[in-house]
Amino acid sequence: MSLTGNFSFHKTKQSWFTRMEKFVGKISTFFASIWKSWYQVGREDPRRAVHAVKVGVALTLVSFLYIFDPLFHRFGNNAMWAVMTVVVVLEFTAGATLCKGLNRGLGTLCAGSLAFLIEIVAETSGKTFRAIFVGSSVFIIGFFATYLRFFPKIKRNFDYGVVVFLLTFNLISVSSFREDDVVPLASERLFTIGIGCGICLCMTLIFPKWSGEDLHDYTVRKLEGLAKSIEACVSLYFHDQEKDGTTVDMESTKEMISEGYQLILDSKSIDETLALFASWEPRHLRHCYRYPWQQYVKLGTTLRHFGYSAVSLYGCLESEIQTPPSLRRLFRDPCTRVANEVSKILLDLSSCIRAHRRCSHDVFSDQLHHALHDLNSAISSLPCPFLNSKNVQSTAKHATNSNSMVTLPSAKSDVDALVEKKNNKNDSRVRDQPVLRPTLSKIDMLSLEFSEALPFAAFAALLVELTARLELVIEEVEELGRKFGFKEFDENLVSIEVRQNETKENVKITDLHSHGVLPSAE
Amino acid sequence: MSLTGNFSFHKTKQSWFTRMEKFVGKISTFFASIWKSWYQVGREDPRRAVHAVKVGVALTLVSFLYIFDPLFHRFGNNAMWAVMTVVVVLEFTAGATLCKGLNRGLGTLCAGSLAFLIEIVAETSGKTFRAIFVGSSVFIIGFFATYLRFFPKIKRNFDYGVVVFLLTFNLISVSSFREDDVVPLASERLFTIGIGCGICLCMTLIFPKWSGEDLHDYTVRKLEGLAKSIEACVSLYFHDQEKDGTTVDMESTKEMISEGYQLILDSKSIDETLALFASWEPRHLRHCYRYPWQQYVKLGTTLRHFGYSAVSLYGCLESEIQTPPSLRRLFRDPCTRVANEVSKILLDLSSCIRAHRRCSHDVFSDQLHHALHDLNSAISSLPCPFLNSKNVQSTAKHATNSNSMVTLPSAKSDVDALVEKKNNKNDSRVRDQPVLRPTLSKIDMLSLEFSEALPFAAFAALLVELTARLELVIEEVEELGRKFGFKEFDENLVSIEVRQNETKENVKITDLHSHGVLPSAE
Repeated sequence: MSLTGNFSFHKTKQSWFTRMEKFVGKISTFFASIWKSWYQVGREDPRRAVHAVKVGVALTLVSFLYIFDPLFHRFGNNAMWAVMTVVVVLEFTAGATLCKGLNRGLGTLCAGSLAFLIEIVAETSGKTFRAIFVGSSVFIIGFFATYLRFFPKIKRNFDYGVVVFLLTFNLISVSSFREDDVVPLASERLFTIGIGCGICLCMTLIFPKWSGEDLHDYTVRKLEGLAKSIEACVSLYFHDQEKDGTTVDMESTKEMISEGYQLILDSKSIDETLALFASWEPRHLRHCYRYPWQQYVKLGTTLRHFGYSAVSLYGCLESEIQTPPSLRRLFRDPCTRVANEVSKILLDLSSCIRAHRRCSHDVFSDQLHHALHDLNSAISSLPCPFLNSKNVQSTAKHATNSNSMVTLPSAKSDVDALVEKKNNKNDSRVRDQPVLRPTLSKIDMLSLEFSEALPFAAFAALLVELTARLELVIEEVEELGRKFGFKEFDENLVSIEVRQNETKENVKITDLHSHGVLPSAE
Repeated sequence: MSLTGNFSFHKTKQSWFTRMEKFVGKISTFFASIWKSWYQVGREDPRRAVHAVKVGVALTLVSFLYIFDPLFHRFGNNAMWAVMTVVVVLEFTAGATLCKGLNRGLGTLCAGSLAFLIEIVAETSGKTFRAIFVGSSVFIIGFFATYLRFFPKIKRNFDYGVVVFLLTFNLISVSSFREDDVVPLASERLFTIGIGCGICLCMTLIFPKWSGEDLHDYTVRKLEGLAKSIEACVSLYFHDQEKDGTTVDMESTKEMISEGYQLILDSKSIDETLALFASWEPRHLRHCYRYPWQQYVKLGTTLRHFGYSAVSLYGCLESEIQTPPSLRRLFRDPCTRVANEVSKILLDLSSCIRAHRRCSHDVFSDQLHHALHDLNSAISSLPCPFLNSKNVQSTAKHATNSNSMVTLPSAKSDVDALVEKKNNKNDSRVRDQPVLRPTLSKIDMLSLEFSEALPFAAFAALLVELTARLELVIEEVEELGRKFGFKEFDENLVSIEVRQNETKENVKITDLHSHGVLPSAE
């Protein structure tokens, strides 16, 4: 018995140890995963940690209003308004903090004045009248202030201000019902809110983070991402495993391309928010009253429209209907050259913006024109690739020497066979020139004859369209340079910048996606 | 003297009247313009006025906590937390209000509990230690809470909750430094916040506005807008003033097309915000735990990708390089038919979603296949339109009867002349089959030969691509019907719906743009 008991005791102890070990293991895995995700968030943008420290310091500073006796005796419980202001106003970027701080100040001031006016009317009357008066003024002001928030302009710039106005007005007017003199209350409140805003302002100006700079960097990255994506997209379209002898990781390349495009396509709200906050930032006042940040938004819109064509180009990769490799191969070199030139120009533009420098006047380079010409020639040199896809293989073999349309036998789909059977009567005519075919009911679109060759026509046309739209982008970039007074183009500077940019290449494009700067953008 | 004095007096009086009149006129114009803009905001969405009234009523109700003696004696100055809650929590849609209300409640509860724990540790110690302890805990909690806000998941769902947590924690822990017993303070605060949340909940459930319904309507409108835009776009592309004998207001049609596309392209943030709020709405709990609102977001993404191709189609209208009308005319009927079929299918899908009904299995209609076939045939019937744009005019004249490539003399640009001059040596070869041309330096892209005919190829290919992508849209719509348990397809129901939908046609597509629902969407 005692042996069994001992054994079972040992067993229990052992299983207890095993369970304990498992438990500790789980706990440590849990904490490791938490640590990893925390580290990840900080690694994506180290300024997040700095901002968190700033908030901590600001809160500690403002809590001194309670902790230190002389300060507490001066402000009393009104110190809570300073705490509240710091929590709500201190934002990630200087522009956002200033926007919120000024909104808060303005809202409080307006609300205080209005409440004071109403107080003057109400104080002479009896208690019942006063109750009715306060109640109805709360309703009316509540209605109008809420309605005002639906105005687009107010919503964009002063939404927070209206909320603060409504809040302060209500608090002051209803407390005035219970307090005899509301003026000291309102002025104390305004004063403590001022202290809170002051602390926020100080903290935001230590290691500041400017929305304007973010907008600038974001635009540069968008251009770079677009350039890389277009280049990768075209080279993937013409990738030929047999000929190149290399394998490309299709999935990861496609992911890279999508990332570049996504950065452009989703940029609207980020652009607008950054430009809005940037317009509140005063640091550039020495140049002019306000920097025309909206030009960045305009450039962003042009880039988005450029991006729609680029995405359609990418769509040719993903298309259900594919042009056979034999046809593609013929246009590989000219198309790749055009894409490379477009990409080079985009990179040029991005480095111009990065260096706050105007572009060279011949940014729309000779090389691009040469490449376009070569593409033109390549297309012209084929007898009829967009019509009869069956020609292509023979054409590819005969290169540019064939003088007439040659129709080689090729694998035929059922539909083709059916069509041919029906058209057997006028067979000679079919060979010379395709005729209108009888309509077939419900067949797979893929079997339509034009489908194979037409997509390449679209690819080429979109590529040409891209170069046309590129001019619009260049115009907007030049307008940007003009409006912001970028320095004039200087050839000597460019070579220095190129080297600098190469060292910056390791910055991730996706960084801004997960910035956490913008309440509305994330 | 007196006469002059009298005269000048009259003159002064008259000018005073004139000025007064002008002033009154200005004032009345000013108020008229204000009234107009107020009316406009309400007319766009009458629910805005309803919401403003609801806020006014909620604020009046909450001010009773101050105004009625028994209530004030019960809650005292803690009533301000109820006022604050109403101002901040009551939002335009039920989902947003619930999201904010629950966040506020949760944040306050967590903060209260944590502050209580810290209070237990701090209360046994001396004043200096307590000051240091409170100060450092404020810093640490401030740091971690702010850092937590950068996590994408927290940011999306609980951002407001974390802010409220930080606010409440700071207020309670610093006031605990001055108050002996912090528990009643915290519980009173929680209670008044509960009252505020309760009032918000009641108000939001009177004439409620569900984000889920908005998302649903928005998706329907997007599909309708897309359908109209595609149809209008293609008919504008083939519009021929001579042949039709009608003039089309190009600008207004283009504006209509752009509006339809813009609704799709800018839909990301609106979709996501509405789906987020909809996921907080409990009204559909009888069906399942949570409606899979994300399916609407997925459908939105597919529609956006469909939209990129559609925008490229529109780009063909705006393109710098245009296919001559003579060539376009040949493809007018088949292209218009394809576009009309695509548009019809999109409208079918939208009416299915509107009626919460599954689609018919043959939504991808026979007619579309017929139209595609006709387009195919039309393209095949031309000898070589995409290569040599000069053929086109003759081809158009000869219709489908010409058997060989005919090169007619046409207006030649300087560049063409230059090229021909250079190629004079092998002139015979040029006529039979185009050869690779010598590269010319820096010429205008418009003068490239392929430019004229290629855009139509792109147009046709994009149209075919659209039909291919349409299948993806149909799949997502079917998935939506399956996930939400839409009722099965019933032919008898459809005819009733068609009549109902016709009465709803007067709903403006642009309405949702200016809703003012979404802080992040506007």
